[in-house]
Amino acid sequence: MSIQKPSIPKGTRDFGPSQMAKRNYIFRHIRSTFEKFGFMPLETPTMENLSVLTGKYGEEGDQLLFKILNSGDFLKDVPEDKLKKDNAKALTFDIAEKGLRYDLTVPFARYVVMNQHEITFPFKRYQIQPVWRADRPQKGRYREFYQCDADVVGTDSLLCEAEIVLMIHEVFEKLQLSDYAIKINNRKILTAITEYIGAAGKESEFCVAIDKLDKIGLEKVNEELAQRGFSSEAIQKAQPFIVLKGTNEEKLSSLQATLGQLPSGEAGLSELQRVFDYLKAFGVSIPQVDFDITLARGLSYYTGAIFEVKVNNVSIGSVSGGGRYDNLTGVFGLPGVSGVGFSFGVDRLYDVLEELNLFPSEAHTSTQILIANFDSDSERFALPLLKKLREAGIRAEIFPESAKMKKQMNYADKKQIPFVLMAGPDEIASGQLGFKNMITGEQKALTFDQILALFN
Amino acid sequence: MSIQKPSIPKGTRDFGPSQMAKRNYIFRHIRSTFEKFGFMPLETPTMENLSVLTGKYGEEGDQLLFKILNSGDFLKDVPEDKLKKDNAKALTFDIAEKGLRYDLTVPFARYVVMNQHEITFPFKRYQIQPVWRADRPQKGRYREFYQCDADVVGTDSLLCEAEIVLMIHEVFEKLQLSDYAIKINNRKILTAITEYIGAAGKESEFCVAIDKLDKIGLEKVNEELAQRGFSSEAIQKAQPFIVLKGTNEEKLSSLQATLGQLPSGEAGLSELQRVFDYLKAFGVSIPQVDFDITLARGLSYYTGAIFEVKVNNVSIGSVSGGGRYDNLTGVFGLPGVSGVGFSFGVDRLYDVLEELNLFPSEAHTSTQILIANFDSDSERFALPLLKKLREAGIRAEIFPESAKMKKQMNYADKKQIPFVLMAGPDEIASGQLGFKNMITGEQKALTFDQILALFN
Repeated sequence: MSIQKPSIPKGTRDFGPSQMAKRNYIFRHIRSTFEKFGFMPLETPTMENLSVLTGKYGEEGDQLLFKILNSGDFLKDVPEDKLKKDNAKALTFDIAEKGLRYDLTVPFARYVVMNQHEITFPFKRYQIQPVWRADRPQKGRYREFYQCDADVVGTDSLLCEAEIVLMIHEVFEKLQLSDYAIKINNRKILTAITEYIGAAGKESEFCVAIDKLDKIGLEKVNEELAQRGFSSEAIQKAQPFIVLKGTNEEKLSSLQATLGQLPSGEAGLSELQRVFDYLKAFGVSIPQVDFDITLARGLSYYTGAIFEVKVNNVSIGSVSGGGRYDNLTGVFGLPGVSGVGFSFGVDRLYDVLEELNLFPSEAHTSTQILIANFDSDSERFALPLLKKLREAGIRAEIFPESAKMKKQMNYADKKQIPFVLMAGPDEIASGQLGFKNMITGEQKALTFDQILALFN
Repeated sequence: MSIQKPSIPKGTRDFGPSQMAKRNYIFRHIRSTFEKFGFMPLETPTMENLSVLTGKYGEEGDQLLFKILNSGDFLKDVPEDKLKKDNAKALTFDIAEKGLRYDLTVPFARYVVMNQHEITFPFKRYQIQPVWRADRPQKGRYREFYQCDADVVGTDSLLCEAEIVLMIHEVFEKLQLSDYAIKINNRKILTAITEYIGAAGKESEFCVAIDKLDKIGLEKVNEELAQRGFSSEAIQKAQPFIVLKGTNEEKLSSLQATLGQLPSGEAGLSELQRVFDYLKAFGVSIPQVDFDITLARGLSYYTGAIFEVKVNNVSIGSVSGGGRYDNLTGVFGLPGVSGVGFSFGVDRLYDVLEELNLFPSEAHTSTQILIANFDSDSERFALPLLKKLREAGIRAEIFPESAKMKKQMNYADKKQIPFVLMAGPDEIASGQLGFKNMITGEQKALTFDQILALFN
């Protein structure tokens, strides 16, 4: 075996102890919030059959799926004439039956359909797992990254939308994030606007253009609408929507006047009103909630509420999104199951917390006490103490060799161990052990029981 | 899009809420034990370059690797004449550069080498992640399964071996497992035995044969040794080892008489003695520790201690194994790094706990209180209470619709929610809410504050 310089696939990362501690800090808060709201964990396999995955993410998505080469003689059943250099695309499904999970939503839908007779609806599940996309890697975009999804399926109650807002708010509070917006919209309102201005079906083009208002100004927005094929009459009728301002309630009542007559408008506005009413009934005021009619993500599958969460004043602000879908499981043969859900992008939350310097030092759950190793006598003296520390629930270790003290201190330092306990010949004789605070550098002489008491 | 009946790849599994709760119960105890002993978490990517993975697990292992088809036009750089039906094996590495993690040890070695200048040695890491093997699925054997590894590299201190025994013992204690054996052996002792009987290098054959003593008896073992090419003189000299009995200390001193003169024997016996001495110095007595000279797993890479943990009286008993390796990172260009580690097989531990009925009911972290939903008044009354329950750290939810009470009770039942809070018109008027214990069926009338107090 020749010696090779090892590397990892591009777009993937190792997470060493300090990154893991920070990631776990985020996961912990998300998980405990999801559970507090009655969501239960689910995990699905890393590999899914390609028949489950393909056709669900658009043509681009299909190309971004990582496919697994069939095991054994993968060419056995392939017709000879298909083995052509220019035939890779057609050959793919002959030699690969499985692919890596691309998101958590499709596997969830697959799970619901396969287990529909065992599941009690409404089914509230959360799922925290990595997904894989063969995207071109770039800053903030990886080929392996984690999603944290929570969904409720089997009810169209708008209480679920309100609780999603509450959960986002709670997670952000725990992470000490306050400067952010929970943008909310409703697909039906977008439909109504395009109907109202006589450009039905052009929700997406409309949103893309008017979303730029702050950046390019009204005149340029109108120009862009024209370029995107909106008639001048449509553009004129669209003006009140483009410049829509005010509180959420003001926006709702302003839209009531124009869209309230259209069935889709009436439905969308009253759904959104209901969500706000629920939040009020909970007795909470969440100023970050922002009704934004330019929000149009996931238009291909969302049928009601649409969510997006943006952290302000950071480089990559969008850290969460979701919405209601009325036919998630239809493609797998189970129609009529309405659901609503959202997803936290942990890698982005990580970058945001790092950028804002919001990771608390306690996030790092390292060893609490290192026992220095002087010689075999000191080692023998220390082992029963080590056992007692651990029995008291303290994360503790002894340096496994009687190395130079500088090396041992450096070890504690690098591993961010806050305390070092020293029991050399003098300390053993006197019973007064050395106890060094690695942050302040201060060293005290304490009995073992006094040290134990510090951690109670 | 046609409607398809979805399925999952063979050998893989979904983990629904109740399995997740049980798995998390196991993970939690393993993780907290590893951390208490000073091990820090590491996670490596699901995909590794095939150049990292191949050649590390033997020829069979290479075939069991799941390989990822290169993205895009994977045939672009393949010579036309390689595209032949009988050429799958040779073609594999032209069209697949990456594979799925096969174990946690090789990625760990790769990580250590890539980060050798940042890592402070000795490096104690634990890693809890799934691995994939294209094995034929059967009972207890999956294509995707979790491993939980803990390793220390960069020291040859035998304290590490002793602490591995302590960690196994602690995890089993937490899982309430007591009827098991921590088998321990030393590669050097096996080497010495084969040298002593004049069959150097035949450790593996020797162990396979004598391991069957209890099943087939001494005579048949000797026959098998003969079949495996041991000379009659070797078999005669092997008799004391085959029938070796007694306590660990008795076995050690009995072997001292025969193997003590050989360098490998002297080294192996004194290393093992040292591990036992350390355990004694810790002040613990672990009767499950069993010095077993037939233990020979992983002979191809273990150079010192060898561990295996077997649970008695269950169908699949082997749940953990490990050992010391002196050259794990050598293949990646970093020689001379000694390490020792072990791995828990979570899927097997799961089956064992299930078989022995050892999962506590508290493992299931479901919602604690369901608030029944009578009508919109009851809903509005309930939402502030729901908020207060959650603020008190109680996992609580409201049924999202005013469905039939039977349906709501069934929901609580299926989700194993222990309590249902009822606030219909009468309860709202009186302030005495209905509080039903779903296990006993008992229902009490309590004020909200009294209910809250129950959970303090």
